[in-house]
Amino acid sequence: MAGFNFLNEFFLFPLSGKLQPILATATETEVEPAMVVAGVLLSLVAIYIASKAGGEFFNWLGFPPVLGELVGGVVIGISALNLVIFPESGADSSASVVISILEATAGLAPDAAEATFQVQSEVLEVLSELGVIILLFEIGLESNIRDLMQVGIQSLIVAIVGVTLPFVAGTAGMMMIFHVSAVPAIFAGAALTATSIGITSRVLAEINRLNTQEGQIILGAAVIDDVLGIIILAVVASLAKTGEVDVVNAIYLIISASVFLVGAILLGRFFNDTFVFFGEKFKTRGRAVIPALTIALFMSYIGTAIHLEAILGAFAAGLVLDNLDQTEVGRELEELIRPISDVVVPIFFVTVGTKTNLGVLNPAIPTNREGLVIAIFLIVVAIVGKVACGFSVFGLENINRLAVGVGMVPRGEVGLVFASVGSASGALSPALDVAIILMVIITTFLAPPLLRVVFGEGEAEEVTETSG
Amino acid sequence: MAGFNFLNEFFLFPLSGKLQPILATATETEVEPAMVVAGVLLSLVAIYIASKAGGEFFNWLGFPPVLGELVGGVVIGISALNLVIFPESGADSSASVVISILEATAGLAPDAAEATFQVQSEVLEVLSELGVIILLFEIGLESNIRDLMQVGIQSLIVAIVGVTLPFVAGTAGMMMIFHVSAVPAIFAGAALTATSIGITSRVLAEINRLNTQEGQIILGAAVIDDVLGIIILAVVASLAKTGEVDVVNAIYLIISASVFLVGAILLGRFFNDTFVFFGEKFKTRGRAVIPALTIALFMSYIGTAIHLEAILGAFAAGLVLDNLDQTEVGRELEELIRPISDVVVPIFFVTVGTKTNLGVLNPAIPTNREGLVIAIFLIVVAIVGKVACGFSVFGLENINRLAVGVGMVPRGEVGLVFASVGSASGALSPALDVAIILMVIITTFLAPPLLRVVFGEGEAEEVTETSG
Repeated sequence: MAGFNFLNEFFLFPLSGKLQPILATATETEVEPAMVVAGVLLSLVAIYIASKAGGEFFNWLGFPPVLGELVGGVVIGISALNLVIFPESGADSSASVVISILEATAGLAPDAAEATFQVQSEVLEVLSELGVIILLFEIGLESNIRDLMQVGIQSLIVAIVGVTLPFVAGTAGMMMIFHVSAVPAIFAGAALTATSIGITSRVLAEINRLNTQEGQIILGAAVIDDVLGIIILAVVASLAKTGEVDVVNAIYLIISASVFLVGAILLGRFFNDTFVFFGEKFKTRGRAVIPALTIALFMSYIGTAIHLEAILGAFAAGLVLDNLDQTEVGRELEELIRPISDVVVPIFFVTVGTKTNLGVLNPAIPTNREGLVIAIFLIVVAIVGKVACGFSVFGLENINRLAVGVGMVPRGEVGLVFASVGSASGALSPALDVAIILMVIITTFLAPPLLRVVFGEGEAEEVTETSG
Repeated sequence: MAGFNFLNEFFLFPLSGKLQPILATATETEVEPAMVVAGVLLSLVAIYIASKAGGEFFNWLGFPPVLGELVGGVVIGISALNLVIFPESGADSSASVVISILEATAGLAPDAAEATFQVQSEVLEVLSELGVIILLFEIGLESNIRDLMQVGIQSLIVAIVGVTLPFVAGTAGMMMIFHVSAVPAIFAGAALTATSIGITSRVLAEINRLNTQEGQIILGAAVIDDVLGIIILAVVASLAKTGEVDVVNAIYLIISASVFLVGAILLGRFFNDTFVFFGEKFKTRGRAVIPALTIALFMSYIGTAIHLEAILGAFAAGLVLDNLDQTEVGRELEELIRPISDVVVPIFFVTVGTKTNLGVLNPAIPTNREGLVIAIFLIVVAIVGKVACGFSVFGLENINRLAVGVGMVPRGEVGLVFASVGSASGALSPALDVAIILMVIITTFLAPPLLRVVFGEGEAEEVTETSG
């Protein structure tokens, strides 16, 4: 019970005259709530500066801003400046620059530093989790069930092949070549599965290829891909909790994740009608956003409660809120969810960056070299697996199968979600974690220039432009 | 040091193979991060449902929605349903319905319940603090320095009298009649000072009196009132930390709060130019909101670091970001800060409600009666003090001095901020805390009907309507 005293004290501190008997003997340092708030505020300032500095710089270079946010996080995190770091890295408060600044400028007592560091980190972890929940909710809102039903057989096959090939090759390779045990191997394989819809569609739009046959197949496949990937992620993360792969359990989890998603979609009309009903009745501020967010948070809770993942619920909630453009409150939601996502999602990406310890891949240290080799292996499987799936397109004349495959290469946001969940579940070693993040970065960097090459940039004029 | 183990375990849990030696002997229950997230998600669902149910119902009744959010919080909180409760009330996890639901539906282990409850509460506390920071930032954005400079001598006098009268009468009464010690007495007095701009201006607009001479004096006074109130609040909260009123310290604090605000205003052009410069250069999502929020969080940090209040910094940041309607990025900020505020501010109001224990005023229990008498005293001082300040208007013919005074009565959001800061600082007894909240509720309820009466509702036609 001794461990609770600290938190009891933290909370009961304002009522110190009324402390429960158990606290009368406690000797721990009290944490000032104001110092925790100060630490969170300062960390958020660092996170936002990193997100904008990185995002804008990468955007200016012609790369997806999300990669810049990640790299911004790497700069302020454990790899470099140590501004925002987390205890899970093994670091203590003396390594945290934010804590040092609090000591120097806000009068944080040195003996309260460690406890303040712990509590502050915990709050940032939950903020980052809320960020990824909103991210997946928004991705769900952008996908919709009608599109999923209409993607066509070509997209379905490309998606299934594009998920299976890298997953099997990645998992088998990790186990057979690198003798990694089953759970981390499956995690690495799973992280190779999901294409980023956001990045792919942006690049296709930029080179005016969104409405070509290839573009439509790629987009359809990327949507299904996301659904398959999120199911795999939920299953793998749940397996990681026990640490071993039990086939019966795995089948049970696949079924429960699928039932959850399908059930959510079948109940979709109910959720959607509830949202529209309340949204249109409501007259006060937040009338569209609060009901939608309540549904998203509730389904995220269900996802967590059934021992899958919160993000599975958030994605399902986004998926079922459909036909938004047909109601006033739906259009309001589409518009107003963006600024909310703009402020919470970067917390997630930057936090992933801060936890990425590039040091574990420093080639000067001999024991790190295996990690580097693993990273190279994952990158090769990630690219070859997706490029190969393009060749599963059948029966169409004059289709650029190579372009379809290359279009499936970027992993982007979704890959980072995989790395983050894997790392939090404890299944991934630091080296494997960094290897997956490097795989995401490299595939996302390579996709835009490669797509331009395989489509042949000069021929874009023949296609009507459909997107700004 | 024993107290740290719990948190170390919480964070290092994913890396259990790598725990530091100190943890090898730890015997506390491990907290699953997923359970903390689940608890926060479920609490937020309850908070949002309470905020909308209460807000919409009160709006439908013709009262300010913010009061409904507060009452919604009272319903789900310690006074009634015990859905969302906090350890500072003395309650433990067995009283929390959210924790019971986690045990029943998400498999939370009973021996991890207490620790999960503590961590979850702590995260909600910080989310609520971020809510009030955004609230004050938005109030600051709505006020602006030019208006402050131009309110005119009448508004200035009404504001000063309207702050001084209730403050002095409240503090003196608490000390002399109720024999309360100096710090809580000053807190109660301070909570009587600040008029709610938001509620006053909404009611004036509804009865078409915003552009009358009385309306302009009220609005000007309410703006100055806010500034004076926030300075008083910062000073009082700081005094509460030591628990005694040291005159030298009080003077030092008044000076540092004023210097901070004036300094922020003087540096305002710099902050404003920085915001516009980066906002207009930026091309990625969140280009207006992230720079503005970074400034707000940074100034909130400064407010905390100099041992005043985070909200003083947030308000100052809102005040210095000025002339927003003259730049594209400024207009974007004005529009996009609203949805963000819509989702975080209700967390603050509902949380204040959940912590309000109406039980301490139950008149059936004899020891509670003094608390009730205090509440009645505060309500009388609150109304009489502000109504009286209306009569400090001088030299104007045909002015409705009673209407000016009545217009200053509603305390609304700002009064709730005072109650919350006071309660968190430990200065207020539960009864005094509830008495202040009742004062806020009653003054805010009374103001709209009273204003209609004193202005004489039938004459509204002669005034041009300026606000929807």
